[in-house]
Amino acid sequence: LLLNHYDLFRNEFLVLHPTDKAEFFSTLKQQERQIFYRTLTSEEMAEVFQGLDILDQKNMLIDLDQRYASEILNHLYADDAADFLAELDDTEALTLLKTMNLDDAKDVKELMAYPPKTAGAIMTKEFISLTSTHTAQEVIEQLRMEGPEAETIYYLYVVNQADQLVGVVSLRDLITAQSNELVENLMSQRVVSVDSSTNQEEVAQIIKKYDFLAAPVINSDGILVGIVTVDDIIDVLEDEATEDLGDFTAARGATDIHVSSFKAAQLRAPWIVLLMFFGLITAGVIDQFEETLSQIVLLAAFIPLLMGSAGNAGTQSLAVVVRGLALGTLEKKGLVRTLLREFQTGMMIGIICALALLLIIPIFYKSWILAIIVGISIFCSLSVATVIGAIVPLIINKLKLDPAFASGPFITTVNDILGLLIYFTIATSLLEFL
Amino acid sequence: LLLNHYDLFRNEFLVLHPTDKAEFFSTLKQQERQIFYRTLTSEEMAEVFQGLDILDQKNMLIDLDQRYASEILNHLYADDAADFLAELDDTEALTLLKTMNLDDAKDVKELMAYPPKTAGAIMTKEFISLTSTHTAQEVIEQLRMEGPEAETIYYLYVVNQADQLVGVVSLRDLITAQSNELVENLMSQRVVSVDSSTNQEEVAQIIKKYDFLAAPVINSDGILVGIVTVDDIIDVLEDEATEDLGDFTAARGATDIHVSSFKAAQLRAPWIVLLMFFGLITAGVIDQFEETLSQIVLLAAFIPLLMGSAGNAGTQSLAVVVRGLALGTLEKKGLVRTLLREFQTGMMIGIICALALLLIIPIFYKSWILAIIVGISIFCSLSVATVIGAIVPLIINKLKLDPAFASGPFITTVNDILGLLIYFTIATSLLEFL
Repeated sequence: LLLNHYDLFRNEFLVLHPTDKAEFFSTLKQQERQIFYRTLTSEEMAEVFQGLDILDQKNMLIDLDQRYASEILNHLYADDAADFLAELDDTEALTLLKTMNLDDAKDVKELMAYPPKTAGAIMTKEFISLTSTHTAQEVIEQLRMEGPEAETIYYLYVVNQADQLVGVVSLRDLITAQSNELVENLMSQRVVSVDSSTNQEEVAQIIKKYDFLAAPVINSDGILVGIVTVDDIIDVLEDEATEDLGDFTAARGATDIHVSSFKAAQLRAPWIVLLMFFGLITAGVIDQFEETLSQIVLLAAFIPLLMGSAGNAGTQSLAVVVRGLALGTLEKKGLVRTLLREFQTGMMIGIICALALLLIIPIFYKSWILAIIVGISIFCSLSVATVIGAIVPLIINKLKLDPAFASGPFITTVNDILGLLIYFTIATSLLEFL
Repeated sequence: LLLNHYDLFRNEFLVLHPTDKAEFFSTLKQQERQIFYRTLTSEEMAEVFQGLDILDQKNMLIDLDQRYASEILNHLYADDAADFLAELDDTEALTLLKTMNLDDAKDVKELMAYPPKTAGAIMTKEFISLTSTHTAQEVIEQLRMEGPEAETIYYLYVVNQADQLVGVVSLRDLITAQSNELVENLMSQRVVSVDSSTNQEEVAQIIKKYDFLAAPVINSDGILVGIVTVDDIIDVLEDEATEDLGDFTAARGATDIHVSSFKAAQLRAPWIVLLMFFGLITAGVIDQFEETLSQIVLLAAFIPLLMGSAGNAGTQSLAVVVRGLALGTLEKKGLVRTLLREFQTGMMIGIICALALLLIIPIFYKSWILAIIVGISIFCSLSVATVIGAIVPLIINKLKLDPAFASGPFITTVNDILGLLIYFTIATSLLEFL
């Protein structure tokens, strides 16, 4: 079909949305792809290319002759090209960069130079800037020319002679304005902008807060260097959510569903094994109290209950704090007040649990001493667990360390060890006392 | 200052971004707010109102006389008004709806009638629709008039005489087209639309996939009833991420940082107490094996290690599957294949952990039998835990039940119980055998 109706197919294909084009292309076999390379121009192919995942992109590169490949790169938005090249090894990327058009290569190199996960790294260079002395009509004429090149034409950034950002005007304002009105009078001078070194999560929060479609990125001299568009921000938010989830489940970097079970085991086993070694510490702790344990073997029965409760209370606090940090709602409250709140919350939950156990354990296990040991232990360990759950991410945030240290399982493990120490210390003291 | 320089202040205030206006307003004291009510028109106040949180909104309503209040509601976008009214009790909401302008009230009522978390519930009614027989220039003229009313003018939806959605044209296409070109020739007829009953998460995935700024919402007759804009989708993604995090940490509905410790304890204690009761089941399980335990007290030392590992492996699987469901990447793989993959992954991780423990335990605890019991147990419980972690969310998704049942702590608890049963059964059998 594809072979016999070139033109018909070509026309059908070209009206598709770029995302659908890429999706369709990725289902094709090697041989069918060859027909595409012959049929589509490099500009049309670039549109398909940017929607493919990295594996298909790399395969396409292998299939193509270098000229056609470098033309595709020229037609890509600079940020897409930079993302792709960053996935290749350095020599390959350099070779490709050299074959590219000089101007385009310069933009791509600039983007690749920013540290990952900063505004600079996720921004695009294809934005529209203007000076304030034009009229609305003139700008609309300019858009007619430059429009197809830019990633968005809905926000237009106004710069002075030194290329410094001085204002912003939306296409909406331009359209609804009188055609001879000057940009100067239409633009807003209070531009919310981000620095190129700003963390991508912060950029996302700003765009979310102001319901922006894009945010301008400036360098330390106030010069407009790029824009971050809302679709990139959606990807950032999804990535951050995936990362958070990974942190909370000892599956950091290993939540991909599309890898083989062998690869999945490879990615996930290190976390499980690492945490198992921490588990050996808890075994060591319990071992120290073997004598206490042999006096009341039933003490062992409540180890899971105590550990589970402390673990849950700790991760609750962790979730509250991590979420507060991510949404920026935590800033308003002080560090100490947050910890105090968590401590109080932990004590209150602890009292409720302790009272419940003081009622239930004597009924089922006919042992007041066991009830008192478990009751006091759960109260103490929940109070401690909430503080641990809150303090660790706060400290990590202050020190700007890798938040992986604050991941759920690590905090749970710390709380396990503390909880067991509390439990057996209380049990040993009370047993001596009797 | 506010009192003496009315006009100056008014002018300064009005150029602020709506988000900043609301932020500033929310810092004001009761008395200062009164001045705002006198100074700003209801239209200007509506802009401030929509950026406030629900508490400040309610307070404002109490402060205002009914006519001014209902004027504010008239000026709000229908979706913002519907969101606000949904937070009031029914009689209050009805009273306010009655005082509103008929047309506006109709839109708001329509939005409130859709089930929560569907495209219908989050969409806005303020969109621009046109017929295909106009020229680009005519449409731009139309925008000049209608533009300020609409939530976005960047996507324009083309409808036929029956108000059915037949095409879409972007403002960008209009601007870059010849001014006498007909909409018919500019529009894309392949419109990606969502049904009003579509789940908000699905809408978010479509907007993300196609990098849309908005998606049109149609009813069962194909009639265009509203649009969902990208800023609403960002909120949806953040809400879903918060919900996911809550599910994974027994903190569902309780991750708000801005409540008192008493309120926080009230929200969080039910989860901890509920899970503690499951913990009592594990205590019961261990109690059944008291005899085995008194033979080798050291068995208790490895309870935390086994439970922790099974819990971690289970939540890893859970994270993978939940993430796959949320991102829509799981659909491509079958249910059975996913379970099989998780089972294999669990076995492989289990073998690694078992081998490690078979080496370590004899060294530290000088007991081969203990090493064998713990080794076999960790292999079996990890294999089971990954399947449980994957199957529960898949079943819940198939049955369209509340995913709270699949939350991390519940799966961990199930895995705890199964893990302990496996552990003590193996221990008891091996001890008898010796």
